[in-house]
Amino acid sequence: MTSNDIKNLLETVKNGNTSVEDALDTLKNLPFEDIGFAKIDHHRELRTGYPEVIYCAGKTTDQIIQIIERMNQLQHNILATRVAPEVFEKIAPFFPNAEYNAAARTVIIRKQDVGISESYISVITAGTADIPVAEEAAVTAEIFGNKVVRTFDVGVAGIHRLFHNIEVIRNAKVIIAVAGMEGALPSVLGGLVSKPIIAVPTSVGYGASFNGLSALLTMLNSCAAGISVVNIDNGFGAGYLASMINKL
Amino acid sequence: MTSNDIKNLLETVKNGNTSVEDALDTLKNLPFEDIGFAKIDHHRELRTGYPEVIYCAGKTTDQIIQIIERMNQLQHNILATRVAPEVFEKIAPFFPNAEYNAAARTVIIRKQDVGISESYISVITAGTADIPVAEEAAVTAEIFGNKVVRTFDVGVAGIHRLFHNIEVIRNAKVIIAVAGMEGALPSVLGGLVSKPIIAVPTSVGYGASFNGLSALLTMLNSCAAGISVVNIDNGFGAGYLASMINKL
Amino acid sequence: MTSNDIKNLLETVKNGNTSVEDALDTLKNLPFEDIGFAKIDHHRELRTGYPEVIYCAGKTTDQIIQIIERMNQLQHNILATRVAPEVFEKIAPFFPNAEYNAAARTVIIRKQDVGISESYISVITAGTADIPVAEEAAVTAEIFGNKVVRTFDVGVAGIHRLFHNIEVIRNAKVIIAVAGMEGALPSVLGGLVSKPIIAVPTSVGYGASFNGLSALLTMLNSCAAGISVVNIDNGFGAGYLASMINKL
Amino acid sequence: MTSNDIKNLLETVKNGNTSVEDALDTLKNLPFEDIGFAKIDHHRELRTGYPEVIYCAGKTTDQIIQIIERMNQLQHNILATRVAPEVFEKIAPFFPNAEYNAAARTVIIRKQDVGISESYISVITAGTADIPVAEEAAVTAEIFGNKVVRTFDVGVAGIHRLFHNIEVIRNAKVIIAVAGMEGALPSVLGGLVSKPIIAVPTSVGYGASFNGLSALLTMLNSCAAGISVVNIDNGFGAGYLASMINKL
Amino acid sequence: MTSNDIKNLLETVKNGNTSVEDALDTLKNLPFEDIGFAKIDHHRELRTGYPEVIYCAGKTTDQIIQIIERMNQLQHNILATRVAPEVFEKIAPFFPNAEYNAAARTVIIRKQDVGISESYISVITAGTADIPVAEEAAVTAEIFGNKVVRTFDVGVAGIHRLFHNIEVIRNAKVIIAVAGMEGALPSVLGGLVSKPIIAVPTSVGYGASFNGLSALLTMLNSCAAGISVVNIDNGFGAGYLASMINKL
Amino acid sequence: MTSNDIKNLLETVKNGNTSVEDALDTLKNLPFEDIGFAKIDHHRELRTGYPEVIYCAGKTTDQIIQIIERMNQLQHNILATRVAPEVFEKIAPFFPNAEYNAAARTVIIRKQDVGISESYISVITAGTADIPVAEEAAVTAEIFGNKVVRTFDVGVAGIHRLFHNIEVIRNAKVIIAVAGMEGALPSVLGGLVSKPIIAVPTSVGYGASFNGLSALLTMLNSCAAGISVVNIDNGFGAGYLASMINKL
Amino acid sequence: MTSNDIKNLLETVKNGNTSVEDALDTLKNLPFEDIGFAKIDHHRELRTGYPEVIYCAGKTTDQIIQIIERMNQLQHNILATRVAPEVFEKIAPFFPNAEYNAAARTVIIRKQDVGISESYISVITAGTADIPVAEEAAVTAEIFGNKVVRTFDVGVAGIHRLFHNIEVIRNAKVIIAVAGMEGALPSVLGGLVSKPIIAVPTSVGYGASFNGLSALLTMLNSCAAGISVVNIDNGFGAGYLASMINKL
Amino acid sequence: MTSNDIKNLLETVKNGNTSVEDALDTLKNLPFEDIGFAKIDHHRELRTGYPEVIYCAGKTTDQIIQIIERMNQLQHNILATRVAPEVFEKIAPFFPNAEYNAAARTVIIRKQDVGISESYISVITAGTADIPVAEEAAVTAEIFGNKVVRTFDVGVAGIHRLFHNIEVIRNAKVIIAVAGMEGALPSVLGGLVSKPIIAVPTSVGYGASFNGLSALLTMLNSCAAGISVVNIDNGFGAGYLASMINKL
Repeated sequence: MTSNDIKNLLETVKNGNTSVEDALDTLKNLPFEDIGFAKIDHHRELRTGYPEVIYCAGKTTDQIIQIIERMNQLQHNILATRVAPEVFEKIAPFFPNAEYNAAARTVIIRKQDVGISESYISVITAGTADIPVAEEAAVTAEIFGNKVVRTFDVGVAGIHRLFHNIEVIRNAKVIIAVAGMEGALPSVLGGLVSKPIIAVPTSVGYGASFNGLSALLTMLNSCAAGISVVNIDNGFGAGYLASMINKL
Repeated sequence: MTSNDIKNLLETVKNGNTSVEDALDTLKNLPFEDIGFAKIDHHRELRTGYPEVIYCAGKTTDQIIQIIERMNQLQHNILATRVAPEVFEKIAPFFPNAEYNAAARTVIIRKQDVGISESYISVITAGTADIPVAEEAAVTAEIFGNKVVRTFDVGVAGIHRLFHNIEVIRNAKVIIAVAGMEGALPSVLGGLVSKPIIAVPTSVGYGASFNGLSALLTMLNSCAAGISVVNIDNGFGAGYLASMINKL
Repeated sequence: MTSNDIKNLLETVKNGNTSVEDALDTLKNLPFEDIGFAKIDHHRELRTGYPEVIYCAGKTTDQIIQIIERMNQLQHNILATRVAPEVFEKIAPFFPNAEYNAAARTVIIRKQDVGISESYISVITAGTADIPVAEEAAVTAEIFGNKVVRTFDVGVAGIHRLFHNIEVIRNAKVIIAVAGMEGALPSVLGGLVSKPIIAVPTSVGYGASFNGLSALLTMLNSCAAGISVVNIDNGFGAGYLASMINKL
Repeated sequence: MTSNDIKNLLETVKNGNTSVEDALDTLKNLPFEDIGFAKIDHHRELRTGYPEVIYCAGKTTDQIIQIIERMNQLQHNILATRVAPEVFEKIAPFFPNAEYNAAARTVIIRKQDVGISESYISVITAGTADIPVAEEAAVTAEIFGNKVVRTFDVGVAGIHRLFHNIEVIRNAKVIIAVAGMEGALPSVLGGLVSKPIIAVPTSVGYGASFNGLSALLTMLNSCAAGISVVNIDNGFGAGYLASMINKL
Repeated sequence: MTSNDIKNLLETVKNGNTSVEDALDTLKNLPFEDIGFAKIDHHRELRTGYPEVIYCAGKTTDQIIQIIERMNQLQHNILATRVAPEVFEKIAPFFPNAEYNAAARTVIIRKQDVGISESYISVITAGTADIPVAEEAAVTAEIFGNKVVRTFDVGVAGIHRLFHNIEVIRNAKVIIAVAGMEGALPSVLGGLVSKPIIAVPTSVGYGASFNGLSALLTMLNSCAAGISVVNIDNGFGAGYLASMINKL
Repeated sequence: MTSNDIKNLLETVKNGNTSVEDALDTLKNLPFEDIGFAKIDHHRELRTGYPEVIYCAGKTTDQIIQIIERMNQLQHNILATRVAPEVFEKIAPFFPNAEYNAAARTVIIRKQDVGISESYISVITAGTADIPVAEEAAVTAEIFGNKVVRTFDVGVAGIHRLFHNIEVIRNAKVIIAVAGMEGALPSVLGGLVSKPIIAVPTSVGYGASFNGLSALLTMLNSCAAGISVVNIDNGFGAGYLASMINKL
Repeated sequence: MTSNDIKNLLETVKNGNTSVEDALDTLKNLPFEDIGFAKIDHHRELRTGYPEVIYCAGKTTDQIIQIIERMNQLQHNILATRVAPEVFEKIAPFFPNAEYNAAARTVIIRKQDVGISESYISVITAGTADIPVAEEAAVTAEIFGNKVVRTFDVGVAGIHRLFHNIEVIRNAKVIIAVAGMEGALPSVLGGLVSKPIIAVPTSVGYGASFNGLSALLTMLNSCAAGISVVNIDNGFGAGYLASMINKL
Repeated sequence: MTSNDIKNLLETVKNGNTSVEDALDTLKNLPFEDIGFAKIDHHRELRTGYPEVIYCAGKTTDQIIQIIERMNQLQHNILATRVAPEVFEKIAPFFPNAEYNAAARTVIIRKQDVGISESYISVITAGTADIPVAEEAAVTAEIFGNKVVRTFDVGVAGIHRLFHNIEVIRNAKVIIAVAGMEGALPSVLGGLVSKPIIAVPTSVGYGASFNGLSALLTMLNSCAAGISVVNIDNGFGAGYLASMINKL
């Protein structure tokens, strides 16, 4: 609701084309659907360019099914994240077109052709164990119409693997760098490329990694510039932000 | 040093235009200047589009002066950050063109006209006490040729102040949101705009803010998408990254 | 035992109506029942206006059953919290009137009509996953005779959902705001209403939410005034305190 | 700005008494004053019943003076908190009516008689060193028109001191309990009274008190019900919330 | 091996009653038995007055059985702690005299009458859920020959329960106070009695109790004197130390 | 106030020797003196055997002087701890008999001969920098009439220094072991002696000692039995508790 | 790829023996094998003297099998760590020569005789529960051709056990000291020997051991010199580093 | 005191050449000098090959002077660390030969020619601000007779600076890598060299570096093998350990 919207609404009130009561209703009648345990933001795609996404952790299977059912009545693509395999098994019968990505733990129902960007997003990981988080980022970016190029297992402990792949990373418009343990990949990369780097710490590691805290702190304290950080294991957030930047 | 550079160098060796020894020297003779306590990266602007910046915390005044003197021999603009007033007093006599921004604690020596971008970066703060960090971000972005629009003291505890200024924020290409204490500004903003938001937690606060930890965690855990985070009080990092995105 | 009670007791001793030994016994014979592993405070309702509540976490099923049996001999309503479904299954056969709320994980045995307050408590959540904690708060407030109005999934990342429901929240006498992840809901609300807000951080989230620490710190550091905080996931505590305030 | 306000405004537009442009201006022209580094919320008292308060930590002396000058043009009482003695010395010459409370570190400029409540707020401390925080709470509550009764140094290590004063605490409408170190005072009190307790942890202590973390955790984990917690050393927040509850 | 032992040994060498080689062997041949994965300290009871105790967490069932077998060849009582029920089931067939305490999770094999002390140790808990830790303490103290008096569920949230039992606690020679959540029991007790209090924080609680950290910090920061603290859930350590003090 | 005291009081009421009003006054008129900012517990020595001690951190110099003045009217010895040298300078003129211990930062005013115990307390430190905390412990124990034997700088990194002094440590009735950095001294000692060890972690150290956290955790996790822990740098608490045990 | 390698390559280009394109390929064609989810570093043994090791945590069983299959085509010994028993069961059928060490949770496929060093590595543990980590260290060192001498259960709480074995520890070239709980073993050892000590904290413990944090901090803060620390439970890292030092 | 020493002593007792009393004295008369507040270990060089070093933090100037005076009577070189400039000013008059290194904050008194090793230790830093810690390491290694090669400011954010200097680092026998902020230098180096790396985190940084915690965790979690870690800012410990390894 920009000030222009308000202005136009006021004009119609002034003209008598809209009653005061109706105008008030319009202002209040925001475009979400209230189903009690959730308020579904159908209008989100118009407002921000991105459809609402279902974060499934902490929701009951029944709640997830109900939300998808409501969203399914519109023509937006549907993305659900953090879907455990046993949850997908229960919801799959209700949505025959649902596609499950076991690594990313995402469910997608495609209803729209969103095209594909010319520029691309580079998604890289330090190790093999970081792939699930990277896949969540990649799947998210792809459902929003971005081209994604994956380069996995190029961590700094064997830096020639990174150098071997540096060209494809450098030519991206934005880079998602996923790393657990010491999380040094974005720092090294930051000195080699001149593109924005979205650093994603993962909970991969043990002992003093403290479930991703170590990688998170490393990334926040990077000496290299051009790096920003999202939450531990937040592949979705990285994919979403990368899409925003890629489409600028 | 891209693979193209290496290829070209190899060609000249093959042609006999370059001796093997000279080629080796070239490969080794990387474009930094070694002054013992520091290796100054004069080549950085060519490689990444950004000149090297002097982070002054932890350096002696004498070291800072020597580094500026070397950089001063080139034609890049010079930016030094985290310069305490008493440090600036000591270095000012050596560099008559140096400009000090007391809020941002930055020193700038302008030697180049870098122009100004058409699109702009919105720099906003939750409170008055967050301004120094915001100024560091703004000054950094400006020295790299970006137009910056400042909007201060629009924190969520009086959300009408944010709404009043929402248009100028929305029309930016990228937003830097600076907040201490509970750090909720980026979360609210993330639901209102569709531009990348660089969240900067500050150490403003007391008690359970734990010197910025509270704001940092809030920003990392934001439910809103399109947000990434830099280190506590890292105005420079935010300004640098915003410049990268603004120029895409 | 107020000073008046002591005074009256002393008068009866002076009159000779009470022997010294009996008076001493009375002073010692405090109104709880000792069953070895627990001391049940039957007198609590008289003293504080609220019956004792059974916090079941860490108690064996056998202990829970014995405690309910003793309390069941009086005419107070009984509330047990943190009752896992498998625990309820075992205790249900002993107490045919026990009602189980699966979301709140509470057991209630109603024996008294406590009426219902005119003013009401607003219980709101930022997300769907916060509902179990909110339900614990709501059930607690209701068993103590309060009218409760629930408004779920109105977090700040889609702030128009909050605004749409702001009237019903504003008209409450006291507000319970339940939120996980970044926990910014109370801060925003604090600037919009002039009622006491009891903020309940939840353990909903992942990564740098550190099991609710992030939301807890956000709420403690709120720039908005009129907010106080209870323990992570402590729906019971919020419901109890809200009842106290609602009945002032 | 309630929906009623919007409704009334729309009516005047419909009537032609207000032009569309003027209505838009009104909606945008929110009642704060923008002085660049701060947006002063003059309208706050009307909206929430409480005038804006100046939190001085992190503001320059010059900024504080400018903000007070603007607020001084209205007839609200002015409260500034976290004013160091050396700051007060600099601002005092500008505001001859300013009163400084050295323990609470507050500045007050009285311009309105706000009356005094019949019911009172009990402000208690565990120790002598907690008094500055308690005074901040008391001064805040008093400037908002509340009667306050102070009882200091009644910590649980000498519990007879608490019992000796229990009547005056019990008869309050709401209690502010201020404690550092182990912070156990609210827990004990919670079992003795049936009034809402606002617990304020202080940074008083050393070693494993971790600047108030110990007291904060104690208060959050209290077994007693009816207790909620504000930030470490946040006397102002406690006084403000207590005022809200006292006036219900 | 005190200096007296060395002196006597040297005398026998001087006398020629002991050869140099034998003396060296004696000095090296310390009274433990090496079974590869463990070095069993049979001599411990003579040296410190207490037999070695088997801490079973982290040991395989097979290792536990082997250690008990070796210790079983001597006439000391045997105490094993942290024995899960499923572990006891496996080891029980080997040791028909073994007694299992399900609450304390201890195994005892009695082989010696150690008598019983005249003075006693008071073991108290704040809540019912703290009983397992208290039982570990009590069982430990009893196997070392101490009289133990248990008083459970006397936490500070209903302080009259503590006062009702204060005489039996005061008359102990040393007190073990076990509490989770906010852990305030020892602080209150410390002001009421003049006996050493061993405070045992437990992991009972949730949210900001951080698995016992809250209770631990409370106890360490107690304003009351005469209190010292052992590790979270360390009933054994408390029982052992209390025995030492009780026998002084 | 034991139950005997209450019984006796009741008898005198019954006899008519005490009026009801007077008895009530007696019960209320607890033996502390209220001077506004502090409630001085003159009766403490009778009740617990130990006079009240003044913890000066966080108190103003004026408050300290007033408290000492009141305590000075009785015949107890006076102990004040955490007295900075500049504070002592200001209070010394008022109390000519005050003795200052610069290492321990204590003030003592002797008014009573408390005798000296036969058994002694061993106070040991791991390093030289731990001496101030050890002195606070020793001074505290001495003012309460205990014999103290000091053994400093016997940390485990040069364990022969500990062994050389082991006899004098072993023969104590109770041991205070003070250590910073890794804090391993109590663990090693615990295997060598059979006396209660009060472990005092100090804030001596740097980096990952985190102001004493490292030593604190080491001591809490000790594998050796017979050890309990007080707060970081809490020499007073250790000395007080040791006195309690030494006098058993 | 040393500068010599580059020089030689350039020479062959100059001679015309290598085309520019081939030289470029060589520079890019680094000796790892890309199988999508992993980049296997076959060249590692030549470059660093140590073959690549498979860290299995976080990898799917299918990924582990594929990686071993590729590595199995060369003649290096293969070491896989963090292999759960159920994972080994699944991969065993594919690799008949694979040996599983259940304590160390390692898999080894021997294909090369690497000999055995003359000097040896001493691997010691404080307790029995630390043995799995020590075994990971020992197995790692052995597969790299080192002689290892194990001494288990010699923690500082019974220090005579350590002294009894001190000769065999002292005569090692390098020592790996593995300890959980308070982790004091390396500190004591550091004062007794003059060899490098690699300290390995383990997650053995409970309560305030915080999963190994306590032991980690102890080791980092050791007063004894000659000690360095690896991650909690990182037996592999310790064994690898010890091998490096043993072979110097 | 090895077992050989004991054996020889016993022989002389047997021969009658040593009386029992003298032998006992010898065993007790360990080679340290007790000056009350410190026990100086003159024998340390003989036992471990390294003279005792004076860690001055936390010691009074007077204590430092006394310790140096005692050590000055022997012929060992003297090294004192953590000497603030103002402390050196006070002690310099007493020791005319004392040399102060202002960056390292060390004092050295040379009395012995310890030679210089053929192999060398590489001391490198990530940034200029890390130099003081690196100098402490270098000075320590040099006073123990090691050749040291310094390479400063080669952090991973400009990785070509590291590569330019890789040969001199690779040819060292052992490497000390000093880094603050994100501390990624050792991880990258670990994949490039095959020498032991002693990683030293520094407190250089701000915000989420948490005084060196970030760098510490990074180094502990390094994916690269061959790395171990010492305490934050512990240059001395690194130099000492490197000397041990360099001399193997």
